[in-house]
Amino acid sequence: MTFEPKPEHKFSFGLWTVGNRGRDPFGEAVRDTLTPVDAVKMLAEVGAYGVNFHDNDLVPIDAAAAERDSIVREFRAACESSGIKVPMATVNLFYEAAFRDGAFTANDANVRSYAVQKTMRAMDLGAEFGAETFVLWGGREGVETDACRRPDDAIKRFREAMNYLCEYNIAQGYGYKFALEAKPNEPRADIYFPTTGSYLAFIESLDHKEMVGVNPEVAHETMPGLNMMHAVAQAWEAGKLFHIDLNDQVPGRYDQDLRFGSANPKGAFWLVKYLEDVGYDGPRHFDAHAYRTEDFEGVKDFARGCMRTYLIFKDKGERWNANAEIKALLAEIAATDNGGVGAFSTEASAGLLGRSFDRVALASKGLKYERLDQLTMEILLGVD
Amino acid sequence: MTFEPKPEHKFSFGLWTVGNRGRDPFGEAVRDTLTPVDAVKMLAEVGAYGVNFHDNDLVPIDAAAAERDSIVREFRAACESSGIKVPMATVNLFYEAAFRDGAFTANDANVRSYAVQKTMRAMDLGAEFGAETFVLWGGREGVETDACRRPDDAIKRFREAMNYLCEYNIAQGYGYKFALEAKPNEPRADIYFPTTGSYLAFIESLDHKEMVGVNPEVAHETMPGLNMMHAVAQAWEAGKLFHIDLNDQVPGRYDQDLRFGSANPKGAFWLVKYLEDVGYDGPRHFDAHAYRTEDFEGVKDFARGCMRTYLIFKDKGERWNANAEIKALLAEIAATDNGGVGAFSTEASAGLLGRSFDRVALASKGLKYERLDQLTMEILLGVD
Amino acid sequence: MTFEPKPEHKFSFGLWTVGNRGRDPFGEAVRDTLTPVDAVKMLAEVGAYGVNFHDNDLVPIDAAAAERDSIVREFRAACESSGIKVPMATVNLFYEAAFRDGAFTANDANVRSYAVQKTMRAMDLGAEFGAETFVLWGGREGVETDACRRPDDAIKRFREAMNYLCEYNIAQGYGYKFALEAKPNEPRADIYFPTTGSYLAFIESLDHKEMVGVNPEVAHETMPGLNMMHAVAQAWEAGKLFHIDLNDQVPGRYDQDLRFGSANPKGAFWLVKYLEDVGYDGPRHFDAHAYRTEDFEGVKDFARGCMRTYLIFKDKGERWNANAEIKALLAEIAATDNGGVGAFSTEASAGLLGRSFDRVALASKGLKYERLDQLTMEILLGVD
Amino acid sequence: MTFEPKPEHKFSFGLWTVGNRGRDPFGEAVRDTLTPVDAVKMLAEVGAYGVNFHDNDLVPIDAAAAERDSIVREFRAACESSGIKVPMATVNLFYEAAFRDGAFTANDANVRSYAVQKTMRAMDLGAEFGAETFVLWGGREGVETDACRRPDDAIKRFREAMNYLCEYNIAQGYGYKFALEAKPNEPRADIYFPTTGSYLAFIESLDHKEMVGVNPEVAHETMPGLNMMHAVAQAWEAGKLFHIDLNDQVPGRYDQDLRFGSANPKGAFWLVKYLEDVGYDGPRHFDAHAYRTEDFEGVKDFARGCMRTYLIFKDKGERWNANAEIKALLAEIAATDNGGVGAFSTEASAGLLGRSFDRVALASKGLKYERLDQLTMEILLGVD
Repeated sequence: MTFEPKPEHKFSFGLWTVGNRGRDPFGEAVRDTLTPVDAVKMLAEVGAYGVNFHDNDLVPIDAAAAERDSIVREFRAACESSGIKVPMATVNLFYEAAFRDGAFTANDANVRSYAVQKTMRAMDLGAEFGAETFVLWGGREGVETDACRRPDDAIKRFREAMNYLCEYNIAQGYGYKFALEAKPNEPRADIYFPTTGSYLAFIESLDHKEMVGVNPEVAHETMPGLNMMHAVAQAWEAGKLFHIDLNDQVPGRYDQDLRFGSANPKGAFWLVKYLEDVGYDGPRHFDAHAYRTEDFEGVKDFARGCMRTYLIFKDKGERWNANAEIKALLAEIAATDNGGVGAFSTEASAGLLGRSFDRVALASKGLKYERLDQLTMEILLGVD
Repeated sequence: MTFEPKPEHKFSFGLWTVGNRGRDPFGEAVRDTLTPVDAVKMLAEVGAYGVNFHDNDLVPIDAAAAERDSIVREFRAACESSGIKVPMATVNLFYEAAFRDGAFTANDANVRSYAVQKTMRAMDLGAEFGAETFVLWGGREGVETDACRRPDDAIKRFREAMNYLCEYNIAQGYGYKFALEAKPNEPRADIYFPTTGSYLAFIESLDHKEMVGVNPEVAHETMPGLNMMHAVAQAWEAGKLFHIDLNDQVPGRYDQDLRFGSANPKGAFWLVKYLEDVGYDGPRHFDAHAYRTEDFEGVKDFARGCMRTYLIFKDKGERWNANAEIKALLAEIAATDNGGVGAFSTEASAGLLGRSFDRVALASKGLKYERLDQLTMEILLGVD
Repeated sequence: MTFEPKPEHKFSFGLWTVGNRGRDPFGEAVRDTLTPVDAVKMLAEVGAYGVNFHDNDLVPIDAAAAERDSIVREFRAACESSGIKVPMATVNLFYEAAFRDGAFTANDANVRSYAVQKTMRAMDLGAEFGAETFVLWGGREGVETDACRRPDDAIKRFREAMNYLCEYNIAQGYGYKFALEAKPNEPRADIYFPTTGSYLAFIESLDHKEMVGVNPEVAHETMPGLNMMHAVAQAWEAGKLFHIDLNDQVPGRYDQDLRFGSANPKGAFWLVKYLEDVGYDGPRHFDAHAYRTEDFEGVKDFARGCMRTYLIFKDKGERWNANAEIKALLAEIAATDNGGVGAFSTEASAGLLGRSFDRVALASKGLKYERLDQLTMEILLGVD
Repeated sequence: MTFEPKPEHKFSFGLWTVGNRGRDPFGEAVRDTLTPVDAVKMLAEVGAYGVNFHDNDLVPIDAAAAERDSIVREFRAACESSGIKVPMATVNLFYEAAFRDGAFTANDANVRSYAVQKTMRAMDLGAEFGAETFVLWGGREGVETDACRRPDDAIKRFREAMNYLCEYNIAQGYGYKFALEAKPNEPRADIYFPTTGSYLAFIESLDHKEMVGVNPEVAHETMPGLNMMHAVAQAWEAGKLFHIDLNDQVPGRYDQDLRFGSANPKGAFWLVKYLEDVGYDGPRHFDAHAYRTEDFEGVKDFARGCMRTYLIFKDKGERWNANAEIKALLAEIAATDNGGVGAFSTEASAGLLGRSFDRVALASKGLKYERLDQLTMEILLGVD
């Protein structure tokens, strides 16, 4: 196996990922600014398929119209000459001090309006590059103290913004799918819609819910110790997996955005296997960044590592599916799955109530899950 | 203030809470069995309004029909003579070895059928006592290894069971509202539908979604470090807060089920204030248990403490709402909330895009949330 | 009660706390730079006793000698005119890119030497202000990947640096006590010496262990869910509580540095009560910062809140000690504490082996800890 | 590679591990009792080296002397005929209700005396089997409410017990090394000495500290999100790694005791590599248990998996050490490690203060840790 990234793998990176300068809460930047054009060249060099951006990753917030146009022109040229697509765009509603109390949910109505306006313009920008997905991460939509706002008011404000943006999407004919990205905390003490599940529920209340799905992120689901693959599966089963953010994270700590597969390889394996088994065909976006110990060559190592590890897991998923002992164990499991309760009817219900179940017998068979998991580990560890 | 519990406060306890014998993973029981009748008497003595039960809290799993009827009769008499209601019933789908691989989501279809049958019978039992809410906690619906089952298959199986049970509810005319209770882990490594948000999303996919809501539990939302009040607010805003489980918990550890308000009093304060402010009128159910150091008198201390602390927070919520300085600060906040983006229209959208926002000005005003939070703390600490 | 801070309370703040500009991993600064002189004036205004600093909080890293002297002169004057002491100094070994791989434990020996040199100069600076305690927080002493260094090599390097600095302390006659501050993670994935306990163990291996103790921090012990008061008690019992950092934090998330007592008031209460009960007479240092929503008035609200809450808990500790019912419960507990096994001797040992214990009787008495804890809560909530 | 366990690997299991019946806080036992003799046979069958036990794993707490002797005789015969050693013994100070408030630290002095007596008898029992290590896990030494006891009193009581037991060890000529096992919580809300570091510090205060070391457990260090290998390295560097408990765990949740290497294979890899690189020659004890879904064949699968995974990691550690690219990267790192500050002297100190460091240069070199970690991952995943 060569594990070489190819366009059909749809690997994408944000400008903010390979361009991350290594600043953190206790330390200054360790790498120089990487221009968008240079970032695209680097991505082409390492074999990526696409690049994503927040509005201000590409266009400085105070750029004049002419500067903006020039940046867009130059970036488009770089993308085209490098063969790099822009599958997704997003908006930065968290960096500026104006958003310190939230964006769509801020108490100051002017901030909310500004946030919606900024998003509309970011949609305009993404549309210029043919982006099909628009991600929204509400990083500042939360609180340090619940004294400042009722959380259901925040939900209503968020809904108002989403309904507005969906209409704008229709009016402009952009054809975006929105993908909402959940996170439980950081940079706010408690962020609204802390999990992918919360957003899936919220989406059902929107005017154009068909237009809105989720963008689960490994790190964000893992921070509170949840199972990322389960979150992705719920989204997929609901037809709402519109995008995905791949990286890695240890539970119960700050947002680490580590190289994909480098902290929890077993979780990453299950995730890749799931995406491949169900036929997810959207971008595999790496929302991660290199350690602060790295220079630009190290950033390339990081980016190459993300993609290579994905492909290693993809291969392992196929091995898992093809493994004879695993297939035999799955067949044993399937043999006990001879239909469920099915649809209700008075007769069926009477029949079910009349059945006699042997509780001891139901508990007597060893289910062989230790063996199944050990076989999984051996495929993971490459000793199968 | 006397903080004495009264029926209108709707305080309820499960038989399994005051009857908890103090067994844990590393230790044996420390208290004798409390019969259901004695539990009801204890609850009446301490001033509770209601009692809830799992089927097997009341009726042993292997009871014959006559024994069952006798138990029911005796328990009903005890409830009536004590003035104790049965607002909620539930089913135990986790204790028996038969459910080691799940109940509604088990791989063995016979286990799934048995679980549905057992739930139907528990519904019958609860209905005999006039229970209006039927809680379902899927404690075993999960995995230690994701090798054994695809999580979307588990979701489909859970949906099949819920649709079936809703039809049974209709067919029997029970009029139950179902309340689904989420938990991220323990006793399984990863439980499906790990948060209230996950269940809120799932409910939208049911045939009779109007009949199904959630039962958020403080400990279960707190284990992964989420904000309980935010989860409750999302449920309330969606019209889905059908029941609530009150207790306490420190994030990131085993399920503690501590006396309400005893670990995170600030969180408990916001929760009580929210329930009271929005006018939630369902039971305040304490799903907690006394420390293992306690005898039966200690169990009463525990139960009294839960209710008393709730009432203390209720009073503090009123003080918060009435506090002059807080009101002034909230008025300042409200003054900046002069309308949001409103409904979309081509004109409105053009207007919004044409607005010029002063980013510096939007960030310049101190929001006084430190003061607001300190005032909250002082009310909490009783030095207001 | 007025809860007004006075010098005898020994409340201190770091320049970096009230001077915190509100930058975070996802957002820019929200407040202007507060000069050291203005910080001292603010601290005097709110009633603090002392100010602490990292070398570069006071003197910019690239300041020439003349600039340094001028800054020192001006700052000293401000401290004197404001009546503000400098009880503690520390060194910044984490902000500069040079420390991206650690300081005392970095793989590059030149970085290690530079870190020691920088610390010596910071000791010189602190000594000019009469600082008695020198805190060392090894924020960068850790890894993202254990591939880069063996952790026992890191321990040996840290020991070499500490032994060197102790000798320098002696040679210069500074009379410092060193206080080591532990943290489990952030900004590194895993920091060496993750808990106060780890440092207490390490200190025993130093050449001048009498000179070195610990500086436990609420947030740092709470991040991994440990009990801060227990860590402080172990340090105190070992004679090693040389300093303390007060703030607040929710377990299992990023370093929050919240206003003291605002997240976990019960834990803060136990901590204050412990410090007061044992007679800790060092500074009560608040290593926290205001929310990003605040302007300078809000920073004052924050600082006032820290001190006021401490004093509220101090008062509550006295109430707890004086409460009649609590005293009676403690007397009951003490009555069962009629001596332990005492010192070993052959006779005593034979006697102990010959004793017959009634296991049932030992388990039969209700210990009334639920009541004791509820009484604690009521004192905490001010309804005693 | 065959990865077959052999006696020289020193793999041991507790009777309570393969004998675990699968009871948990929400469910009944799923497996029948495995007698000690049958457990030994099973361990021999799967290739283990040793068996460990708590006193009451082998001898029921209420066994008469004759029954005890008969059990001991029979068990010894089983061990001898199976070629299974007893390298470690321990005492159960947590199961009985008598220990609900602690054992060595309980408020009731009779409980403390009983706990010491019970430990002495467990030492007697272990000595009969030639056990060289005596493990103490103080699972009940903690609190739900800090109202009941001052934590420094608990430390003093624990010290009294340890000093006593060390003297008993000497008096009896048992030659045990004690290994203290830390855990942060569960079954108590907060356990004293929550981490290996805490115990390492405490040991320094004992009368016979040379006799006492630690028994770090993967799950217990991982529950609070700490780095197990770092804890082990601190213990090793201090000469205190007297025993080790291998299993697996996800941070921030209940004590899982999963099959070794099955949750966090990267952490397990570093741990095994460390033990092998430093030449740890004590037992590799698996303190884990099979999933509840398993019957006895599944328990064997579990036990075999623990050992096999250890051996796979041992082999991977050798591959890591031998990998040419890794060796080249480590050589680059070593090249920058040209000596530290060394020993202090006035001259050396002056020299150090006089050195001029180029901060920019110190930060300029890419450290290639992303590459180093990716190479590690590829060895882990078996694609090297």
